[in-house]
Amino acid sequence: MDPYFEFLCRMGDNTLILGHRVSEWCGHAPVIEEDIALANTALDLIGQTQMWLGLAAEVEGKGRTADDLAMLRDAWDFRSALLVEQPNGDFGQTLMRQFLFDAWHLEMLKGLTQSCEPRVAEIAAKAVKEVQYHVERSSETVIGLGDGTEVSHDKMQAALNLLWPFAGELCTPDAVDDAMHAKGIAPDLTTIRTAYDTHIESVMAEATLTIPDSRFAHKGGKSGFQHSEHLGHILTQMQWLQRAYPGATW
Amino acid sequence: MDPYFEFLCRMGDNTLILGHRVSEWCGHAPVIEEDIALANTALDLIGQTQMWLGLAAEVEGKGRTADDLAMLRDAWDFRSALLVEQPNGDFGQTLMRQFLFDAWHLEMLKGLTQSCEPRVAEIAAKAVKEVQYHVERSSETVIGLGDGTEVSHDKMQAALNLLWPFAGELCTPDAVDDAMHAKGIAPDLTTIRTAYDTHIESVMAEATLTIPDSRFAHKGGKSGFQHSEHLGHILTQMQWLQRAYPGATW
Repeated sequence: MDPYFEFLCRMGDNTLILGHRVSEWCGHAPVIEEDIALANTALDLIGQTQMWLGLAAEVEGKGRTADDLAMLRDAWDFRSALLVEQPNGDFGQTLMRQFLFDAWHLEMLKGLTQSCEPRVAEIAAKAVKEVQYHVERSSETVIGLGDGTEVSHDKMQAALNLLWPFAGELCTPDAVDDAMHAKGIAPDLTTIRTAYDTHIESVMAEATLTIPDSRFAHKGGKSGFQHSEHLGHILTQMQWLQRAYPGATW
Repeated sequence: MDPYFEFLCRMGDNTLILGHRVSEWCGHAPVIEEDIALANTALDLIGQTQMWLGLAAEVEGKGRTADDLAMLRDAWDFRSALLVEQPNGDFGQTLMRQFLFDAWHLEMLKGLTQSCEPRVAEIAAKAVKEVQYHVERSSETVIGLGDGTEVSHDKMQAALNLLWPFAGELCTPDAVDDAMHAKGIAPDLTTIRTAYDTHIESVMAEATLTIPDSRFAHKGGKSGFQHSEHLGHILTQMQWLQRAYPGATW
């Protein structure tokens, strides 16, 4: 498959699947302020999806639209990282997942604003403003809950232990990432990883949380080779309407 | 809508939705013996669905099949009782739901073996043999867990309190039930209710469980007027394959 198309799907599928996950909180968050904040985050991510998958569909040139890519592909064609399909768990776990993603997302988008592809640079420039706010909020929550009560600290440590093995995939380059970097479309993931690690370490230190020793990272999400079982369940819910009422619009 | 078609959908939708719910246990039950027993129950119910919805489709005469009715209707066209769409909860709650359904199912099928419609009598005669076994097993489990440890007793009492308001709908006649009884197709639900009550009371007494005082019964399932939110979620999972791959066969 064309690595550029593949890369755009990765960007859009990450924001789509995480946006869907975060939207699951709508009406269920512990306080109204957080409920609205989560819904806004989800909306930002879905908005970014529209741009990335819209460009992916154009690049593919087979007449598909962003909606087609989002609503009519099956699990094996998704290129989202494993981290974003992990379940919400409790509020702290959701925000830990968000921070582990946001910290990568911010560095990635900053790099992409320098892309040699003007359309990519343009989308990144729009998205990075939103993501700066996302990471501010998620890092502050991770710090507040990590360095909070004994209970909240333990829950956040458990969340970090659970999610850490899914974070590495985002920063581990493969052939698609290398091709994108070589063409000047996307930044070097090894550079991203350095900035990512520094950011994570500083926030976790302030949150009094211990980053697991192991750098073991599950993979198979962004390559589409092996998603977790969660993705299929997400798609049954997310795609239901288009599957049941093909071509439905409003 | 034709009350005979409606009635056949009720029979088939009850066994379909309960069969699906019970199948959710597959691979998850507390011991292998129970896992297999639950899977077998689910298979019996899906087999009965095939017969009821097959006949419903024939009676409707619009060229639809049992599979079309099961996999391509949306929530509002389902005629299953509210009881069968209730979540599995723990193992005891699943078996409580099963017993509250089985006790009705057995009486209903016994009555239907006397139906003036030979096809209905024939299906009922096949199904009643399976359901005699279902009710034996579910009643024994309700008794064993109800009259078991303090913990199992409390869980079963909680399950009965939770599910009791969903049991009444099965025995409460409406216009469709009255029409079926008047035509000699189905038994009188008020007679079923007497036998049902006697059966429930005897099992709950042996299980040392207290039947809630109130006879309040939620309704809206078998009429299709107001299903619980659960049904839509069941359908997204159950119908996914046919929705995503229309006409798929194996």
